[in-house]
Amino acid sequence: MKLLAIYPGTFDPPTYGHADLIERAHELFDHVIVAVGANSSKAPLLTVEERIQVLQEISKPYANVSVESFDGLLMDYAREKSAKSIVRGLRAVADFDYEFQIAMVNRKLNPDVDSVFLMTRWEYSYLSSSIVREVAKLGGDVTDLVPEAVRPVLAGAVKRGKS
Amino acid sequence: MKLLAIYPGTFDPPTYGHADLIERAHELFDHVIVAVGANSSKAPLLTVEERIQVLQEISKPYANVSVESFDGLLMDYAREKSAKSIVRGLRAVADFDYEFQIAMVNRKLNPDVDSVFLMTRWEYSYLSSSIVREVAKLGGDVTDLVPEAVRPVLAGAVKRGKS
Amino acid sequence: MKLLAIYPGTFDPPTYGHADLIERAHELFDHVIVAVGANSSKAPLLTVEERIQVLQEISKPYANVSVESFDGLLMDYAREKSAKSIVRGLRAVADFDYEFQIAMVNRKLNPDVDSVFLMTRWEYSYLSSSIVREVAKLGGDVTDLVPEAVRPVLAGAVKRGKS
Amino acid sequence: MKLLAIYPGTFDPPTYGHADLIERAHELFDHVIVAVGANSSKAPLLTVEERIQVLQEISKPYANVSVESFDGLLMDYAREKSAKSIVRGLRAVADFDYEFQIAMVNRKLNPDVDSVFLMTRWEYSYLSSSIVREVAKLGGDVTDLVPEAVRPVLAGAVKRGKS
Amino acid sequence: MKLLAIYPGTFDPPTYGHADLIERAHELFDHVIVAVGANSSKAPLLTVEERIQVLQEISKPYANVSVESFDGLLMDYAREKSAKSIVRGLRAVADFDYEFQIAMVNRKLNPDVDSVFLMTRWEYSYLSSSIVREVAKLGGDVTDLVPEAVRPVLAGAVKRGKS
Amino acid sequence: MKLLAIYPGTFDPPTYGHADLIERAHELFDHVIVAVGANSSKAPLLTVEERIQVLQEISKPYANVSVESFDGLLMDYAREKSAKSIVRGLRAVADFDYEFQIAMVNRKLNPDVDSVFLMTRWEYSYLSSSIVREVAKLGGDVTDLVPEAVRPVLAGAVKRGKS
Repeated sequence: MKLLAIYPGTFDPPTYGHADLIERAHELFDHVIVAVGANSSKAPLLTVEERIQVLQEISKPYANVSVESFDGLLMDYAREKSAKSIVRGLRAVADFDYEFQIAMVNRKLNPDVDSVFLMTRWEYSYLSSSIVREVAKLGGDVTDLVPEAVRPVLAGAVKRGKS
Repeated sequence: MKLLAIYPGTFDPPTYGHADLIERAHELFDHVIVAVGANSSKAPLLTVEERIQVLQEISKPYANVSVESFDGLLMDYAREKSAKSIVRGLRAVADFDYEFQIAMVNRKLNPDVDSVFLMTRWEYSYLSSSIVREVAKLGGDVTDLVPEAVRPVLAGAVKRGKS
Repeated sequence: MKLLAIYPGTFDPPTYGHADLIERAHELFDHVIVAVGANSSKAPLLTVEERIQVLQEISKPYANVSVESFDGLLMDYAREKSAKSIVRGLRAVADFDYEFQIAMVNRKLNPDVDSVFLMTRWEYSYLSSSIVREVAKLGGDVTDLVPEAVRPVLAGAVKRGKS
Repeated sequence: MKLLAIYPGTFDPPTYGHADLIERAHELFDHVIVAVGANSSKAPLLTVEERIQVLQEISKPYANVSVESFDGLLMDYAREKSAKSIVRGLRAVADFDYEFQIAMVNRKLNPDVDSVFLMTRWEYSYLSSSIVREVAKLGGDVTDLVPEAVRPVLAGAVKRGKS
Repeated sequence: MKLLAIYPGTFDPPTYGHADLIERAHELFDHVIVAVGANSSKAPLLTVEERIQVLQEISKPYANVSVESFDGLLMDYAREKSAKSIVRGLRAVADFDYEFQIAMVNRKLNPDVDSVFLMTRWEYSYLSSSIVREVAKLGGDVTDLVPEAVRPVLAGAVKRGKS
Repeated sequence: MKLLAIYPGTFDPPTYGHADLIERAHELFDHVIVAVGANSSKAPLLTVEERIQVLQEISKPYANVSVESFDGLLMDYAREKSAKSIVRGLRAVADFDYEFQIAMVNRKLNPDVDSVFLMTRWEYSYLSSSIVREVAKLGGDVTDLVPEAVRPVLAGAVKRGKS
């Protein structure tokens, strides 16, 4: 049996924490689909296409990782892909509670799919896309926060948002 | 002395967790008013009337439970009703902190009213109205999430929201 | 139906927080049994008899409160007393998790009994018997921590522990 | 070396908790700048000017406290002021996680500035500006929630918001 | 590459939650070693041999699960076994913090091994070995708490502890 | 006014996290006393003298830091030293709750002394003396966990404990 996992998220933008998770997940599963939720954010900073593009650059070193977008219910998407696992990153306690609720509802909706939680590297565990967006909008330096591939796209999106 | 309790909430929509709480509260108090906060949500999915109607259906088995709506401050409403207790459901830790803050301000505003926290059944403790709304909007199956009376009203509200 | 509640604890020693909870519980229930767990602490500071005595002094103003000790399983004791509710105080988040676990196991063991959580006054919410014991053993002033009735008994127990 | 600290916030409106923090901070540092974030709230209740004015009244007793506004990144502002410390109030656990994340990103952006957390008085620890705004909008009594200087400005802002 | 995971614990006694985790882990990995920490508890209720025996009975349906004991450092044991993953169950928030700390130190000690967190079924998430021990010692019914294979061994251990 | 702070702890043994806190505190205060609690641990691994010695080595670079031991109540010790601040490190949420309780009781016992919380570097935030003790006892490598000065003393203490 080939183990297929989905790593879903908004990735607006992807951070070093996301990149770290992709690296860990690709070692654990036969195939990993990084799945950009197309309907999860009302007014995203990056377009879905931009997010897919930078996630593909980040995932290039791993032959068993692909990037897609999905809309609708994650569990319907998982069923369609015959995925057995949902990968989620655990950072802080605030995450944990919310992740638990989501995971429980997901299990109700599709008991065949299990949630698997991985831990980002400690130094990335404080990173969230929303903090990165705020720093970027205020003109801060995001070098230590997002991978190189993300920076020009993020800079372009911030500029676009201001005009 | 007759003990009157208010169980306030947004109930947009009511979940199995809310239904479970109503059942527990009706055994503890002489009378329970399920009180729909009319001003607590800016763009509700269900109208206040729809929420009252399905809560009345859910509460039909309990002779000592009534359903009302209120606007303004909960503590003013409690004073007007001469309620001695506010019933709140405890689910997860994230809840807890927020509930504590609200309860403390409520106590400042009206020291005669005590907050009483009850625990939903474990299997409902991951349910929140916001997760239910998201599942419903994305076309997921809400059978295990909300009581039967809620389903047609929720389906109608989702349909209405899309047109 | 008369609502009987049990407020169980170790009460080694009772604090202002416990006293506050007893006052709140006596208003909510027809009868409250403050139940000292005789087997919950291996090397208690106060004897069970001392704890019962000071809890009786604290409860004297409330005609519907009595004090007892129990050993064995709380849920067996609750069944024997035909209690419908277990009263617990909520203080901080650390409490919450543990209380939740205990309450869930209790519900498995006896589904007829519900846990009811009340909130102590904010200024007592930092108080725990273990902190009080530590302050007392180190010779600190416990005037703001425990009711008057507790102080001589606590002082005696600390003295006894040193000799 | 003179220790300069920044106490940043939205202060919409300032509460008794903020006032308490200012008092504590002024004892710890040579100089404290209370810094109103001009871009942190999209639709503030009080204007930045109103917030500065009432914070100045609150800070009048302390010769080493001044009030300013800033926009842009806090860490850029701290660098410009040569501040060595950021003062933050700790209230509840929910705060804690978020504060930690912010503090970590801030440290990445400017390692020379340390975050210093102080604890408000227990009785103010449940206060947040958002709860105060809600109480004020619903016509509740804010006497126990905000300092005297804040009340007329808050009342005016609520009235303005309704017209 | 064959993925080998270690599921370490004290298992004193194994609960339904542990059994559920073993079932989930056996689907995710090529091989799972359930590893009883021989030095993690000072005065265990069950002997290491008893714990191994009942875990073997619980694991009998899964061909790719074996049970061993280990002493010394978990990360040394993982290196010796060439394991790539440590499986841990996530229950409540209190767990989470501690698990995080352990996982971080483990990563420092052996960066080649990743911690993978799985979620027990909701209804088992309140279970802990220490609560089970307490219920068993007080003569409570453990039918809903531990698998059938554990019950006679647990009963024997409690009896032994009393004589 | 000269600001004197006490940084109390058990320090059994001091970790990189403690060393980091001492460095941060020495920049914030005119003088810092690192205060080893002589009665806080029943069966310590390191003697009080060993802990004082390694803390002195760690503090050698900072002219305004001294190391002492104390027994009795921390607040009595603070009064005797005329300290205005207690420095505490914040690591994880579990800490936070406990620290809050301690800080509140301390404030009751001596309102003139304020607790000041500092944040260790992220990569040390998972470190605790108890985890270090466990790793050391099981023969693990503590190079990344404790400063160089601590290692021989820790090794000696572990050896002593085994004989």
